[in-house]
Amino acid sequence: MIHHDGSALHVPDQAPRPGDDVEVYLRTSPGVRQVHVRSVLDGEPRFSEATAERRGDELWWRATLPVRNPVTPYRFLVDEHWYTAAGTAGHEVPDGTDFRLVAYPAPPAWIRDASIYQIFPDRFARSPAWAERALPAWAVPCGWDAAVVGRGELTGRQVYGGDLDGIAARLDHIQSLGFDTVYLTPFFPAGSNHRYDASTFDAVDPLLGGDAALARLAGALHARGMRLIGDITTNHTGDSHEWFLDPAAQDRYYRSPDGGYASWLGVPSLPKLNWNSTGLRKAFVDPLQRWLEHLDGWRVDVANMTGRHGTDDLTHEVSRLVARAVRETRPDAMLVAEHAHGAGGDLDLDGWQGTMNYAGFTRPLWTWLRAADLALPDFLGVPGGVPFRGGDAVVRSMRAVSASMSWRSWTHSWTALGTHDTARVRTVVGDPDRVELAAGLLATLPGVPMVFAGDELGLTGAWGEEARRTMPWHDEDSWHRPTLERYRALLGLRRAHPALRHGGMRVAHADADTIAFWRESPDERILVVARRAPGPPVRVAGLEGAVNLYGGAAEIPADGPTFQVWSVG
Amino acid sequence: MIHHDGSALHVPDQAPRPGDDVEVYLRTSPGVRQVHVRSVLDGEPRFSEATAERRGDELWWRATLPVRNPVTPYRFLVDEHWYTAAGTAGHEVPDGTDFRLVAYPAPPAWIRDASIYQIFPDRFARSPAWAERALPAWAVPCGWDAAVVGRGELTGRQVYGGDLDGIAARLDHIQSLGFDTVYLTPFFPAGSNHRYDASTFDAVDPLLGGDAALARLAGALHARGMRLIGDITTNHTGDSHEWFLDPAAQDRYYRSPDGGYASWLGVPSLPKLNWNSTGLRKAFVDPLQRWLEHLDGWRVDVANMTGRHGTDDLTHEVSRLVARAVRETRPDAMLVAEHAHGAGGDLDLDGWQGTMNYAGFTRPLWTWLRAADLALPDFLGVPGGVPFRGGDAVVRSMRAVSASMSWRSWTHSWTALGTHDTARVRTVVGDPDRVELAAGLLATLPGVPMVFAGDELGLTGAWGEEARRTMPWHDEDSWHRPTLERYRALLGLRRAHPALRHGGMRVAHADADTIAFWRESPDERILVVARRAPGPPVRVAGLEGAVNLYGGAAEIPADGPTFQVWSVG
Repeated sequence: MIHHDGSALHVPDQAPRPGDDVEVYLRTSPGVRQVHVRSVLDGEPRFSEATAERRGDELWWRATLPVRNPVTPYRFLVDEHWYTAAGTAGHEVPDGTDFRLVAYPAPPAWIRDASIYQIFPDRFARSPAWAERALPAWAVPCGWDAAVVGRGELTGRQVYGGDLDGIAARLDHIQSLGFDTVYLTPFFPAGSNHRYDASTFDAVDPLLGGDAALARLAGALHARGMRLIGDITTNHTGDSHEWFLDPAAQDRYYRSPDGGYASWLGVPSLPKLNWNSTGLRKAFVDPLQRWLEHLDGWRVDVANMTGRHGTDDLTHEVSRLVARAVRETRPDAMLVAEHAHGAGGDLDLDGWQGTMNYAGFTRPLWTWLRAADLALPDFLGVPGGVPFRGGDAVVRSMRAVSASMSWRSWTHSWTALGTHDTARVRTVVGDPDRVELAAGLLATLPGVPMVFAGDELGLTGAWGEEARRTMPWHDEDSWHRPTLERYRALLGLRRAHPALRHGGMRVAHADADTIAFWRESPDERILVVARRAPGPPVRVAGLEGAVNLYGGAAEIPADGPTFQVWSVG
Repeated sequence: MIHHDGSALHVPDQAPRPGDDVEVYLRTSPGVRQVHVRSVLDGEPRFSEATAERRGDELWWRATLPVRNPVTPYRFLVDEHWYTAAGTAGHEVPDGTDFRLVAYPAPPAWIRDASIYQIFPDRFARSPAWAERALPAWAVPCGWDAAVVGRGELTGRQVYGGDLDGIAARLDHIQSLGFDTVYLTPFFPAGSNHRYDASTFDAVDPLLGGDAALARLAGALHARGMRLIGDITTNHTGDSHEWFLDPAAQDRYYRSPDGGYASWLGVPSLPKLNWNSTGLRKAFVDPLQRWLEHLDGWRVDVANMTGRHGTDDLTHEVSRLVARAVRETRPDAMLVAEHAHGAGGDLDLDGWQGTMNYAGFTRPLWTWLRAADLALPDFLGVPGGVPFRGGDAVVRSMRAVSASMSWRSWTHSWTALGTHDTARVRTVVGDPDRVELAAGLLATLPGVPMVFAGDELGLTGAWGEEARRTMPWHDEDSWHRPTLERYRALLGLRRAHPALRHGGMRVAHADADTIAFWRESPDERILVVARRAPGPPVRVAGLEGAVNLYGGAAEIPADGPTFQVWSVG
């Protein structure tokens, strides 16, 4: 056994500042003879020897590392092996997987307790006002139960009429499930139903009820002690955006002398912003800040491409600029970046607090729980469908991806079983009962859980646009009640147990069909066991007197398929 | 079998520019069904499918990737596995180990053909002028054969009187061994024998013969078609440096109001330069450029700490500034950075061309060839001595460290069996015959080989300062002749076979006692077999008609210990 992560059990000071000397703890089996911690200070490694203390069956090695830089990489030399966030190695490993202690100001405390409910506004719920609204020319009105076409001439044009007051009227549903935060995909006026092609950042789309409706929704949420997160595009706007049309703001986009311009993946309606423009830098601060009157933070769309174009790479600057603007207005705001593949290099910079963890959560879980007959052609553009993998590979994926960022960034990243850009988890796993395993892992693994509205009812959908189904409020018979109740119970469990939100994560056992791990805080130890299939008993040490919190089993090790949570006193 | 590296066999265009579409080749066993290449463009991954062609027992998969950014990360999706520079993974891997195609201007072509001879000027050879020179107060004159004390009151003060004209008189020795480049540790006036505490960058130390002697040495080298590399400290100067003493240049250092100042690892004689200073940025360009009248490039001391101090991290800026200044004067100059642990993050930036590859070469080889009774307390500060590891671990180390940088940076990094900062390789391996394996790998692995003067004679030394022994010119009986001849033969082999300098590197076999690898160019395939001990025969496919180039064996697989090189038509 060897373990360290950035949680409070192993790094008691969760908000170190430059100048501090910080204690870190490494846990090992008793056989280990010597441990040094190597930290990097001003670019130079330094070693300090750790001292051991016996606690039960473990040695707890304590070492002190000097925090002088905004980010302090560190690793352990355990006898002759390196131990980094990527695990143990009996060979040289470069610095990219070192643990990282971040001494920038910590994100607001509420984030690590949050559970997020994602809403694609057009598809969630209509308010009575809907009937009176005039539709723009691009919109093709659809009955609430009409099928989403998603591809072809209707792409982006089907409008179902969900609006912000419709959401406000359904907060009981959301809150009773256990969510405390609502994340809305964009609400700006645009030329499509997804609104990632904003025509202005200065107004709420009248189709959604306008500015006043946003204020009402935010007010209703805040009155319940809940929060609201918006969605903004730093990479591009719509081609009808007022900046794009303004002759005085031409430098805010990448334009060529012949009138051409760069755009998101070559889609002409999404011209790409040029962050070399000081005008853009100034202008963007305004919407970022003004909507924080109502919002509690932003999700940043296409953060991975923002500021990157040819020889320009301004992403880190932009992330800091955005973070500074947001913090100035709302020091307690959330700021998370879309980045589906390699966010590590763009985090821990005093910019984005975390990412949407597709690479280290969504895709690994899909590979483990996917239906045998699943026929998705790709995963967010990764060809070859969704591979079928074992639980050990899932654990390796999580470790590898988490090693590319600090524990802070990892735990402030959003975990989702699916989003408005992917298939629905119900479709991915096939059997509705297997959604329980997915939702169970969502509720118990590190990260900020996010659920796409409708997943809790068992909605299906094979790709992003098709998955943007309307909520069947009027057809409760279609709801998959066990799924609803499982989400409620699992989110409740998460809320009830701080270790599930703030604890470390230590793998207890992983094989093809099993993932078992500890969530441990200074006050609580919780074992989570997920098995996708029956199999031989799994032995986990240290379970004497364990109490079953979820899964209803009388004893462990349990056979599968099962999802169980145990607490050890 | 699966293989790709950045060499010409797999990336025919070795100097791509933004805007190019570049062909890359992946080689696999015939069983593979589908290959995609994923490249990242403006921060977004894109996939293109590769097409296969059968060549002998291999499939060669060709794909095209668009180069639009200065650095294009790429990886392969091979059926359901990722293949990156770190190898194959059946799980998600973050982007840090992607292959990297660098579209900055390529370093000058001569570098990848160079073999470097490192000289610590005080210890190499005296010229007759030595006898007349006055010593500064700090210097303690030593007879040529006096022991190096290295620690204590004499640290840095023993002066043996080697000088630049002494070197010029010994160029036959250097050139006849096969070296074409001489690297000098600093030649600036200073307060120590190592001269990393320069008092000016504007003169050559009179103790070494002054400016004129440098001109003579450079002239003599250039007349032979050889080159000369200098050594400069961007991180600090000496506390007697004219800048440090100049009231008008106070901002070039990190000073506190109370008169204190930051220094290298707290050593007061080495005040740290503050690269926020525009005065420093301007002033530093002058020595960088003026000495290129004689020098063919620079090795940059403590590059890893340069520009890093507290919340400042200006390293990348400084590396680009230095590179620009150097290139302006000498577009064909070499520029390599000292960085002993995690250089990957500081390369591929249009700054340093490579690093001193301690992490991916020196330390791994030491772990494989170290004497059983070696008692070094540490390796460049890494405690726990030098672990004893197998050849498979060496290969894993090389793969892991190389995956943190581009093939270009990897192959432009200096490989050394030891330097003026470490023990001597002869001491590390113990048995003089084992030096052959070390020197053989130095001559045949990717990188720019660098030999610390005296290694070829079998000099010993257990740590940096102790290893800075004088060359026993007058005592040829003490020379280890077989070592000398092996270096000569191995460097000759390298010079004779472009594949050993420019070829790809593909591991053929690795076990505890064996490292066998191919160096392959479009024209040549060379197998290198290093075995540190006897063992069962090693089978390598594709050796029909192989010709022995080194090692004298009549056939392979050979028993060990042995070092053999084979060429396949």
